[in-house]
Amino acid sequence: MASSKQQKGEKNKLFIGTFIHSKQLDELEFFHDTAVCVDKSGKIIAVESSCDQKRAEETLYPKLGWSAADVDVTVGRDGEFFFPGFIDTHIHAPQYPNAGLFGKSTLLDWLNTYTFPMEASLSDLARARRIYSRCVRRTLAHGTTTAVYFATIHVAATNLLADLCLGAGQRAFVGRVCMDHSLSGPPDANSYLDESAAASEAATRATIAHVRAIDPSFALVSPILTPRFAPACSREALRRLGALRAETGLPVQTHISENVGEVALVRACFPEAAHYADVYDRAGLLGARTVLAHAVYLSPAELDLVASRGAGVAHCPCSNSALTSGEAPVRVLLDRGISVGLGTDVSGGYSASVLEAARLAALVSRHVAMPRSRPRRGRIQQGEEKGEDGNEDEGEGEGGEEESEEDRERREKAKLSVEEVLYLATRGGAKVVGLADQIGAFRVGMDWDAQLVGLSTVGEEDVEETQGITKEREEEEEDRGNVDIFGWESWEERVAKWVYNGDDRNTRMVWVKGRLVHQRRK
Amino acid sequence: MASSKQQKGEKNKLFIGTFIHSKQLDELEFFHDTAVCVDKSGKIIAVESSCDQKRAEETLYPKLGWSAADVDVTVGRDGEFFFPGFIDTHIHAPQYPNAGLFGKSTLLDWLNTYTFPMEASLSDLARARRIYSRCVRRTLAHGTTTAVYFATIHVAATNLLADLCLGAGQRAFVGRVCMDHSLSGPPDANSYLDESAAASEAATRATIAHVRAIDPSFALVSPILTPRFAPACSREALRRLGALRAETGLPVQTHISENVGEVALVRACFPEAAHYADVYDRAGLLGARTVLAHAVYLSPAELDLVASRGAGVAHCPCSNSALTSGEAPVRVLLDRGISVGLGTDVSGGYSASVLEAARLAALVSRHVAMPRSRPRRGRIQQGEEKGEDGNEDEGEGEGGEEESEEDRERREKAKLSVEEVLYLATRGGAKVVGLADQIGAFRVGMDWDAQLVGLSTVGEEDVEETQGITKEREEEEEDRGNVDIFGWESWEERVAKWVYNGDDRNTRMVWVKGRLVHQRRK
Repeated sequence: MASSKQQKGEKNKLFIGTFIHSKQLDELEFFHDTAVCVDKSGKIIAVESSCDQKRAEETLYPKLGWSAADVDVTVGRDGEFFFPGFIDTHIHAPQYPNAGLFGKSTLLDWLNTYTFPMEASLSDLARARRIYSRCVRRTLAHGTTTAVYFATIHVAATNLLADLCLGAGQRAFVGRVCMDHSLSGPPDANSYLDESAAASEAATRATIAHVRAIDPSFALVSPILTPRFAPACSREALRRLGALRAETGLPVQTHISENVGEVALVRACFPEAAHYADVYDRAGLLGARTVLAHAVYLSPAELDLVASRGAGVAHCPCSNSALTSGEAPVRVLLDRGISVGLGTDVSGGYSASVLEAARLAALVSRHVAMPRSRPRRGRIQQGEEKGEDGNEDEGEGEGGEEESEEDRERREKAKLSVEEVLYLATRGGAKVVGLADQIGAFRVGMDWDAQLVGLSTVGEEDVEETQGITKEREEEEEDRGNVDIFGWESWEERVAKWVYNGDDRNTRMVWVKGRLVHQRRK
Repeated sequence: MASSKQQKGEKNKLFIGTFIHSKQLDELEFFHDTAVCVDKSGKIIAVESSCDQKRAEETLYPKLGWSAADVDVTVGRDGEFFFPGFIDTHIHAPQYPNAGLFGKSTLLDWLNTYTFPMEASLSDLARARRIYSRCVRRTLAHGTTTAVYFATIHVAATNLLADLCLGAGQRAFVGRVCMDHSLSGPPDANSYLDESAAASEAATRATIAHVRAIDPSFALVSPILTPRFAPACSREALRRLGALRAETGLPVQTHISENVGEVALVRACFPEAAHYADVYDRAGLLGARTVLAHAVYLSPAELDLVASRGAGVAHCPCSNSALTSGEAPVRVLLDRGISVGLGTDVSGGYSASVLEAARLAALVSRHVAMPRSRPRRGRIQQGEEKGEDGNEDEGEGEGGEEESEEDRERREKAKLSVEEVLYLATRGGAKVVGLADQIGAFRVGMDWDAQLVGLSTVGEEDVEETQGITKEREEEEEDRGNVDIFGWESWEERVAKWVYNGDDRNTRMVWVKGRLVHQRRK
């Protein structure tokens, strides 16, 4: 059985080198020349600074009762660093083949045009296996050690996704999608829908039973209750899932307030609710370990409710930009004390990479921060008093309206730094899924969910190669991607370069619970 | 000498397979089972449909007077396609090592903090060689067959960049940067500045003379007049460069209206000008083959002027987002008849890839298209009449303000399609640099500036691999990146997938003027 096989033959592990993780939202912590010891169960049991392999063998092994023969040693090369594995708090595995296909659509027409037909096709298990295998393999290669998956309405295919995650060693929350209400008129025979609210519940229970059979303590793979989103669910379906949450204590995932049309639709469908968030709250679906995807247009009252319930948000910048949904006010969410992680939201988002989501989170936050008033567009009036201060970086509003200092500060504050988006990609996500004590950082007692990152070094000898055809790195054994390190960069700068130009080529090795689950060819 | 060496030993070339290029702004053209013949000078001399190698040998070679022994044949494999090389209309080669380093800065503080110190350091020729070599090699690997480079104020390093482009076979416009006015107070001994307007002109002439010596007809590498931007130039420097333009007919590049603070600064520095564009126009710098980078905040009067002069715009979405500059209104520019190409704007832009710029152009255009008014943020009022139409994708404005149908259409129209951003990356850029008849498409009489694109195929056998560690494509010989083709995609969908998830791994081979200038390892 996969779960027993998982740790079979695992040894103790010693990691040596540079370790980087988020100390807090806006600060990375760097550990150089450090040793991290991981036991056979995948737990970090020691973090020792100023330590190399020899010293670890001499001083740590005796304390831990380890013998060198029973330890796998991984030493980060010069310039490489260990980083916590990424947590993708929102990804639709069945939509993986649609990545990049969305045209000029927005949410509701995108669902009917691209998404439901693709999801419906996963009733074919062979097709589901092909798609899910590739999705799991790719996300592991991107350094995603934990994924919060929407599957489809199909129990068998959803169970298969759970099997594949367990087999591949990816930590996962796997949700069978509940949807019993048509978005596009009366359901017909071809509708991609649950037959009833009772059917939604029964199918959800079937998936829970399957996951319990393959991973009894949900140590690696857990079910997650998954009402698609309010407009696709009857009140009865929401109520039943809320009751199931109370009964099982399982986590919940759904969508909220992604698009203005959707918000209007929810208002129309649920006139009894105070607002969108209230629809879920009335059903008992809002609480700790509830993952709310998007949250672009939440009202102050909704923010208060979400914060008070302890629910978290999966911020999905690639998707919000691609589907013209809007710009999520991440700083506002954080300032309210709401936990925020990153979601790729494949295939509303075009990329399965959390690093890409982190990059886009930084960029989208800058769109939030852009001046909404434009400089005067007509002829420039002469004789106005203007400073010549070259460091002045903002002009005045259109029509002579001055922006208040407060507005200007609020805009400036909206920007997310490299440090912050990496926090969201790791510890932020861990909080959202209720695993803040277990994953997202390198602390004794936490699991070893990690990636080894290597960048490309620009050698002095490269200068000769520009003459004539440049065969890609003939001299090197491996392709280390587009992040070029010249050697003068600080560690903070290396990390920034990785965030902005990195890709799966930089993720050399990936571990989950101590198990090596991905390795790039040498 | 490099220029004579360039075509040495070149053979005639036959390309067989699928060719895709922009037919017009919003339409790609697909040529399957087609043969393209390129002569020894790098010109396309025949495009023949329904043609394979055998047929080409039997019917085309005799017509062209070719013998098989004198022809290099390249056959695109199944699923591969030839695409015109990318044109990067705005890139600062000396800033290449700063890619990804910009913190939370905006234009004017970014220049002083990151940019000027890096550029100043290229007075060291060895350092310049190392940086420029890598930049040229990387951009070729990204499929950039034509680059419009800002260099630095240093003549020797600028000349070296021209040498390297010629040696590597990259089509390039190389500009020595003219700047004789300090942005940050009185210049001191360490200032990165030309000593005077006369010095700006003399240094520019020195670079022109060098390029004329190595590539007399500017067939591959051309000088380009490069006033950095108005605030960094004296009126006298601008005037001298305008006169040099009139004297030589050389192209011009500069920046315009990137950031609201910069716009205010120009207004303050040039009170006699009607507006920012007028500053350049008064100096005689606006005309066909004038490349204006950014153009985020141009007024209607400026748009009219730019259009009437036939100047083009380098749209730099990565940079505009990264530096919180703003959202360029590309649709407005296009509708005014202004030519628009894409610029990576390294290192205001974090990526040297034009494909990334194309992707971001699509995304940023969706930010332009986002509703500016938000749904009511307070408690939702009950009893309002709302449709339940699932295809409704936009709600109402904040505070009950209805958006007009006209505004809504204008927003929707702002979105750039995959077809459109690829047009900007190729034919749009070709127009901006005045080479619309020579590069950017596959037409008889044009140069063979092209890339061979290959995507990753998801095999049926992949399903077994998710068990246990997934070593990256052990079974394959090469890493074809993150674009996964399942086999059911249309050609349009393959192209969209490439735009949204492609990278340099998909650019298998690159040619400029018929010469193979980059090839990924097998």
